[in-house]
Amino acid sequence: MNPNLQKAYESLLAKSKDLAVLGSTTAIVNWDMETKMPPKALNLRSQQMAMLEVMGHKMLTDPQVGKTLEAIEKDPGCLELDAVQKRNTYLTRKGYDEATKLPESLVFETAKQQTIAVGVWKKAKAAKDYGMFKPELKKMIELRQRAADILMGVKCTKTPYDALLDSYESKMTADKVTRVFTGMREGLIDVMKKVEGSGFKPDASILSRPVPIEVQKKISEAAMDYIGYDTKGPNAGGRLDETEHPFTTGYYDDVRITTHYHEDRWASSLYSVMHEGGHALYEQNLPQAWMYQPIGTAASFGIHESQSRFVENMVGRSPEFLAYMLPRLKKIVGKPLRGVKLADFIAAVNMVEPSKIRIEADEVTYGLHIIIRFEMERDIFAGKLKVDELPQAWNEKYDKYLGVEIGNDSEGVMQDTHWASGYYGYFPSYALGNIYGGMFLKKLRRDAPGWRKEIRKGNFQPVKKWLVDNIHAKGNLLDPADLAKEVTGENLTVKPFIGYLEKKFGKIYGF
Amino acid sequence: MNPNLQKAYESLLAKSKDLAVLGSTTAIVNWDMETKMPPKALNLRSQQMAMLEVMGHKMLTDPQVGKTLEAIEKDPGCLELDAVQKRNTYLTRKGYDEATKLPESLVFETAKQQTIAVGVWKKAKAAKDYGMFKPELKKMIELRQRAADILMGVKCTKTPYDALLDSYESKMTADKVTRVFTGMREGLIDVMKKVEGSGFKPDASILSRPVPIEVQKKISEAAMDYIGYDTKGPNAGGRLDETEHPFTTGYYDDVRITTHYHEDRWASSLYSVMHEGGHALYEQNLPQAWMYQPIGTAASFGIHESQSRFVENMVGRSPEFLAYMLPRLKKIVGKPLRGVKLADFIAAVNMVEPSKIRIEADEVTYGLHIIIRFEMERDIFAGKLKVDELPQAWNEKYDKYLGVEIGNDSEGVMQDTHWASGYYGYFPSYALGNIYGGMFLKKLRRDAPGWRKEIRKGNFQPVKKWLVDNIHAKGNLLDPADLAKEVTGENLTVKPFIGYLEKKFGKIYGF
Repeated sequence: MNPNLQKAYESLLAKSKDLAVLGSTTAIVNWDMETKMPPKALNLRSQQMAMLEVMGHKMLTDPQVGKTLEAIEKDPGCLELDAVQKRNTYLTRKGYDEATKLPESLVFETAKQQTIAVGVWKKAKAAKDYGMFKPELKKMIELRQRAADILMGVKCTKTPYDALLDSYESKMTADKVTRVFTGMREGLIDVMKKVEGSGFKPDASILSRPVPIEVQKKISEAAMDYIGYDTKGPNAGGRLDETEHPFTTGYYDDVRITTHYHEDRWASSLYSVMHEGGHALYEQNLPQAWMYQPIGTAASFGIHESQSRFVENMVGRSPEFLAYMLPRLKKIVGKPLRGVKLADFIAAVNMVEPSKIRIEADEVTYGLHIIIRFEMERDIFAGKLKVDELPQAWNEKYDKYLGVEIGNDSEGVMQDTHWASGYYGYFPSYALGNIYGGMFLKKLRRDAPGWRKEIRKGNFQPVKKWLVDNIHAKGNLLDPADLAKEVTGENLTVKPFIGYLEKKFGKIYGF
Repeated sequence: MNPNLQKAYESLLAKSKDLAVLGSTTAIVNWDMETKMPPKALNLRSQQMAMLEVMGHKMLTDPQVGKTLEAIEKDPGCLELDAVQKRNTYLTRKGYDEATKLPESLVFETAKQQTIAVGVWKKAKAAKDYGMFKPELKKMIELRQRAADILMGVKCTKTPYDALLDSYESKMTADKVTRVFTGMREGLIDVMKKVEGSGFKPDASILSRPVPIEVQKKISEAAMDYIGYDTKGPNAGGRLDETEHPFTTGYYDDVRITTHYHEDRWASSLYSVMHEGGHALYEQNLPQAWMYQPIGTAASFGIHESQSRFVENMVGRSPEFLAYMLPRLKKIVGKPLRGVKLADFIAAVNMVEPSKIRIEADEVTYGLHIIIRFEMERDIFAGKLKVDELPQAWNEKYDKYLGVEIGNDSEGVMQDTHWASGYYGYFPSYALGNIYGGMFLKKLRRDAPGWRKEIRKGNFQPVKKWLVDNIHAKGNLLDPADLAKEVTGENLTVKPFIGYLEKKFGKIYGF
């Protein structure tokens, strides 16, 4: 590399490091808001979050970054940059272009509104009062609409919602999502109908036997031990805390997960821990050499979800994992699991039943929850759906796709934090995660045919190693669809996921 | 106010607000480091803390602030500013001048070294290995020495250590401290000798009866309830967590305290909670109208300590508080307190006995711990004491002043976090806090003669109201000695404190 290019590239990496350090700081402050902050501090915290947001935006839009990028891109030697250097340059350019389009005042206002809206959402949800939440939600949507309008660029090739989608799932569009979700919906409904037609109904009462929260905490420990997510050791890089909605946050050596304990649904927390643990392993196993670089991040939100869902469902709800865990759970839980047979436990944990709450949905119907949210978001930002109409639209779709009746808005349109937080375009990545996960599973079967036996023995290592080598170790080197293609050799397809569901649930339900 | 002056003053307040918001953010990130952070994150966190520090330094030294200050100071209308406006301008000028003297690289390096040194200190303390800590301590002292040399200004009127002192206790110098501490030392030794000469020895075994930590947590709740420090209500502005060394941090609506539970010294945590609670009440009761302004801060570290010590000792170790609490403690603790008589409990809690650990020292000998640290700091920065010599100097002074033999450096020179953190000049404020507290107590007795009766009834309100009205409500309107003078009518004097000790311990020990 010639000295000028070298200097420019190093300056770019220094700016990236600042951004990564600030971003990881913001993550901690946000984590504190969700887990530890005294309630009185909400207003002060909204000032703090807004300031961090503005600082991040200033760093991201620093004109010096623009000049450095130009210097690299115009340098004839830039062709000799290696793949990592090229990707770091590309990702910085992408982030810079996206960020410079948004005025600082909008970024500031959005960050502030996020804190306020989440606070009000919590209160409104507790009070089952959508009317209380509505004005804050409306403001939030308007702010994101303004951002989307700016980010979208040329109107005839992209919609505002495409622009929002792209920030979670690079190069994805509403049209592409609609297409792949159509196949998914058909496949899911098909499996759901076969389940219903089987006549078999697992006895899920095992899972609603009361288990004290102190005991459930020990189950969390066992789950974290299983996947090797360390929160206790002298060199631990993780934590487990409690929040209304489980989430993962952090960076490399400080990646934290949360869960929520329900006394009468003890397995809910087990699977939250497995799910968030899957996210956490991804962040913890990004290449150490890429720390503080743009490439030292996850490939996309969808790929992230593929990792969490892989650990939660493909491992955590597999008969092999359950066979290993059941005797151990019996020891921890005692009476409530006494005499429970493995087959009954597998059936209970994998019970398919249309429900109201997304985060408690089963592996088959989950995608339908997402498809509902995706369709609503797409319609909101296309101006086809108004904030006043959301509860009704929500309830109608739940009736239509899942056949369930929503009793109040707290179990309906207000159940998720995403819209209060302004995360429009995020939901599709959950279902894309299932789709990628199906593709990865197919490849894992070929690469490590004995993986299920090892899971049965309590050995998560072969699966973890495959995920680290194939996904985590690649950081943000490729766009999500390209990564899936490189790992599996296939273009984006829902078939392996549907095939996996067919086989697994066919066995359990006898179809 | 003329429009130009108005505009300049408002711009100053806006900058102050940014500083306050950033400072309160840094406090949260630091709190997380001390209480919740996974150990692996230490290096990452040192980057985060250093970045926040640099950002704060940049804000503080923003040339725009200098220009705005000049505009205000040169405006003929500035004479018409009210006392609050004048003080805000003065405090901003003071902070700006101090900060602009320090190069950014030094600030950055110091913040980074602080995180590293505290991390190593923890390990070295656990390993009783001063050799492990020494190089980091040395670096830290060198960095503060460089800062002190710059801050000191003219050499013939101020020493480097004076410059460090001034940042905790405005307008205090090593000479003044030496003078007032001389009187204090004589007074304390006099009371200590009278105690020893009394021949009475309280039975302190009550306090070493094992009390499970879960039970001690209920004692903490009772103490927080007593003083009205809310951590549970829907509008709570506080938290209680556990750390090696108890501390208070935060800002207005988010003020957090920590404690440390020792199973075999159950009252230790009770008094940590009372002490930190005293700090917390001060921060929480600064005038709401001054939030985000320079004046909306504590008057000094010494005044802060006067508040914590007032709640811990003058209230918390008073016979009246103990008379109220004992039956309640008996209910919480059960067997270990069964049959304990009030007089014995009062004597045990107020036992005077020279000891090794500062934070466990009694009300009489505590000041001697501080005087030792003050003398050592003063000598370090005067070049009379080397880092290699600290353990020996420490142990000799403990032998000389307190007559105790230090067994290892973990209970000796490494017992406190302050030196690892670079807080040289901080220690004197603890003893100054006692001195101010004595002055305040004398005035409280005159203003609210029935206060002890109310404490006995469980009513902390009269004392709290007096502290809020006389101290908290004045924020940073006056320098500490001026505040004490305004409240009490007296110049700085150790007499009321020594008189209070004479009377209280004379009664308990019968001299």
